Amino acid sequence: MSTTPLPVAVEPTRDEHLVAAVEGAGGRVVGPAEARVLVWIGTVDDFPELGDQVEWVALKTAGIEEYVAAGVIDDRRVWTNASGFYAENVAEHALALLLAGLRQLNTSVLRHWDKQPIDTAVRSLHGSTVAIIGAGGIATSLIPRLSACGARVIAVNRSGRPVDGAAVTLPSERTDEVWGQTDHVVLAAPATAQTRHLINAQSLEALPSHAWIVNVARGPLVDQTALVAALRDGQIAGAALDVTDPEPPADDDPLWSLPNVIITPHVANPSSGLTRTMAPWMAENIRRYLAGEELLAVVTAGSAY
Amino acid sequence: MSTTPLPVAVEPTRDEHLVAAVEGAGGRVVGPAEARVLVWIGTVDDFPELGDQVEWVALKTAGIEEYVAAGVIDDRRVWTNASGFYAENVAEHALALLLAGLRQLNTSVLRHWDKQPIDTAVRSLHGSTVAIIGAGGIATSLIPRLSACGARVIAVNRSGRPVDGAAVTLPSERTDEVWGQTDHVVLAAPATAQTRHLINAQSLEALPSHAWIVNVARGPLVDQTALVAALRDGQIAGAALDVTDPEPPADDDPLWSLPNVIITPHVANPSSGLTRTMAPWMAENIRRYLAGEELLAVVTAGSAY
Repeated sequence: MSTTPLPVAVEPTRDEHLVAAVEGAGGRVVGPAEARVLVWIGTVDDFPELGDQVEWVALKTAGIEEYVAAGVIDDRRVWTNASGFYAENVAEHALALLLAGLRQLNTSVLRHWDKQPIDTAVRSLHGSTVAIIGAGGIATSLIPRLSACGARVIAVNRSGRPVDGAAVTLPSERTDEVWGQTDHVVLAAPATAQTRHLINAQSLEALPSHAWIVNVARGPLVDQTALVAALRDGQIAGAALDVTDPEPPADDDPLWSLPNVIITPHVANPSSGLTRTMAPWMAENIRRYLAGEELLAVVTAGSAY
Repeated sequence: MSTTPLPVAVEPTRDEHLVAAVEGAGGRVVGPAEARVLVWIGTVDDFPELGDQVEWVALKTAGIEEYVAAGVIDDRRVWTNASGFYAENVAEHALALLLAGLRQLNTSVLRHWDKQPIDTAVRSLHGSTVAIIGAGGIATSLIPRLSACGARVIAVNRSGRPVDGAAVTLPSERTDEVWGQTDHVVLAAPATAQTRHLINAQSLEALPSHAWIVNVARGPLVDQTALVAALRDGQIAGAALDVTDPEPPADDDPLWSLPNVIITPHVANPSSGLTRTMAPWMAENIRRYLAGEELLAVVTAGSAY
């Protein structure tokens, strides 16, 4: 293990949680021109030109499609994202959304003590089957929560390699088999060409009419026009969305007026607590880098789906 | 075990789920005048005069304070309620309410994509401590759910006998010690003279300002005037109530207009699915009665708190 402090830039602002994590793990916070490591907590639009001395760039988000689209990610250094760092938070939000839908919390908030229709519409998570599409870190955190709630899990991942705690794991090319076998769906896959409009008119048709869809991944996984039609027609029971396409939905988007939709403003992993949550993971990765060990969350193409 | 079918009345309507349960367990459904057992699924106001031949009355609810107040319950036969029968359902609703509060689902539903304040107000259940006041059947179902969500549990029950899965169990006379040691509170105790206004100005003062209170028990456990004041002043973060005092709250009750309140219309155990949920428990109790075994849910004074 190296004893020379690793020169690390934390940009565009020297966030206190990350600076403390870097220094505590054997790094020294420096300006970008000297840095061998860049921890970037700004936006893709402000991403700087990289000097050749930068060996590793650490991004703060789990979804990196904007960086891919901007052509920022190169093969001249290692890139990490935050895949898995926020999994506990996102899994908790997914469970909150699913339970809120099933237990009619949205209609209860909007329609004061409208007891009869709400009482009749309440459903239980216990005894139901939940499919998690894109079984990576979020699923690892979500499955024990769902199991404790008495639900059975179908996991879908790229390889089809069995996921701990799931009753069934299917490879992503068999995703279409899921819709007829599950009660509810949680979307937790990255946004890629393969996952675009994974929820579409066909999948909505194949889902049971009591199904809730939860999206804590990315808006484009859902064909929103088809979703609105299915929600209007009662083809599925409801949708609880932390992400939409676009974000936010336009003021006149029908999603806002449908009674069986819950929308949270992309807060499954709140921005306000992000660097604090990221800090211990960053410290661990700096320790690994100095020790020559494999880094966590190295960017590869769509490993979860 | 007796081989003569036990004459059981299911009144005031011969609910299909309960009739099937009674018949499947060795009972024969008869009119009230012949019955040795009365399964009563009506209201307290319609409760009939009981003949001396009735040895056991089975009530459909877990809370029986109305029957106690009406003086219906006598000591000339055995009385059972439904304590514990609906615990899974109620525990699931309690978790839904707590998560909805912490993850700001109510403000999200009411204030479309008002991202900044919502993002800042989101809190996590994982890493927090939750006190369950009245640690009976609901707590038994709720504790594994909370544990899977990464929360630590303080249980309060009458005896103080350690509750499985709770980090700490306190006897009810030490309830006041809980407020300063917990992040959140779930009320699951029966309504008795001892539990009336358990949440009051003093307990609200002692709770941390980030605390959510969830009530899935009975409205009178909370001094609602004190609660409204605490919610207005930010003394606690919020309240998620499936029960209120009275039910429903009046149209001009300030609870309806507070942004940090979630109210569901007493649907933790939906009336619409009640007899179906109750049926297998009723079958088990008939089997026990015929076998001379101890019945489930025999009415005693406030066993959970």
